[in-house]
Amino acid sequence: MKLTRVLTMTGLALGLVAGTAFAAGHDGPPPAVKARLGLMANFAYNLGVLGEMAKGNTDYNADVAAVAAANLAAFSATDQSLLWTAGTDTGSISGTRALPKIWEAQADFGSKAIDLATASVALAAAAGTDLAGLQGAIGGVGAACGACHKAYREPQ
Amino acid sequence: MKLTRVLTMTGLALGLVAGTAFAAGHDGPPPAVKARLGLMANFAYNLGVLGEMAKGNTDYNADVAAVAAANLAAFSATDQSLLWTAGTDTGSISGTRALPKIWEAQADFGSKAIDLATASVALAAAAGTDLAGLQGAIGGVGAACGACHKAYREPQ
Repeated sequence: MKLTRVLTMTGLALGLVAGTAFAAGHDGPPPAVKARLGLMANFAYNLGVLGEMAKGNTDYNADVAAVAAANLAAFSATDQSLLWTAGTDTGSISGTRALPKIWEAQADFGSKAIDLATASVALAAAAGTDLAGLQGAIGGVGAACGACHKAYREPQ
Repeated sequence: MKLTRVLTMTGLALGLVAGTAFAAGHDGPPPAVKARLGLMANFAYNLGVLGEMAKGNTDYNADVAAVAAANLAAFSATDQSLLWTAGTDTGSISGTRALPKIWEAQADFGSKAIDLATASVALAAAAGTDLAGLQGAIGGVGAACGACHKAYREPQ
């Protein structure tokens, strides 16, 4: 049911609270941008913990894997509709690599968010079982990250 | 059931993956610290959207209020046990205001995280109903934020 909500909101409400988003800005990017960068940092951190285990760089730990994967699933299921406010692309402000194309292709952008949430649910179901389960499911999450970044994130 | 999980993990596992947390660090704070700052940014953003409505600085919008409050509840229910890794207090690294006391009072710190999750659930149940519902429930979240910051965050 969370995925349905992500779909509904991501499609409908990008840029809904642009005015509000800027109201509390003091320094650096506006709060909405700080929040979405923060969301990405949590995606990256949890996926990093899991990736290091999957590659054998750290010992597999079922409890840690389960927590990281559950967090990744929870974060990717949150509603992003208030984060992608109008006027916060990389051409308009500094501190973001979000391409303007996000706001021109909202349905596809939302679909890619759902792909991540779906892959993260699958990973959460497998990561705490054993290393093979983690290794089998992590690729789907990486692919979902990569697909969205390739289309919608400015190259460095 | 999410609250139970927060309680269990926060009490048990602070600092569990200290080695892993630093493995992927390139610049700035380590990934675990970026992730917890990112979590705080999402707390602040969603609470900011709701606070502006509660104070009458922006028009009350039931849909936006419901989304922001649901996100706040989801973020506050995530498992923070992998975020507060050993050696990431303000005395050990730059880029954080986390006091060393966090690691000396883990049970209380975890309890304060649960207070936030509990208050956020109450806010999520009320925020999308009407302005009075939002106004009646937002204070509990603010109090939970403040109690933890007062005890565990270095003053600026």
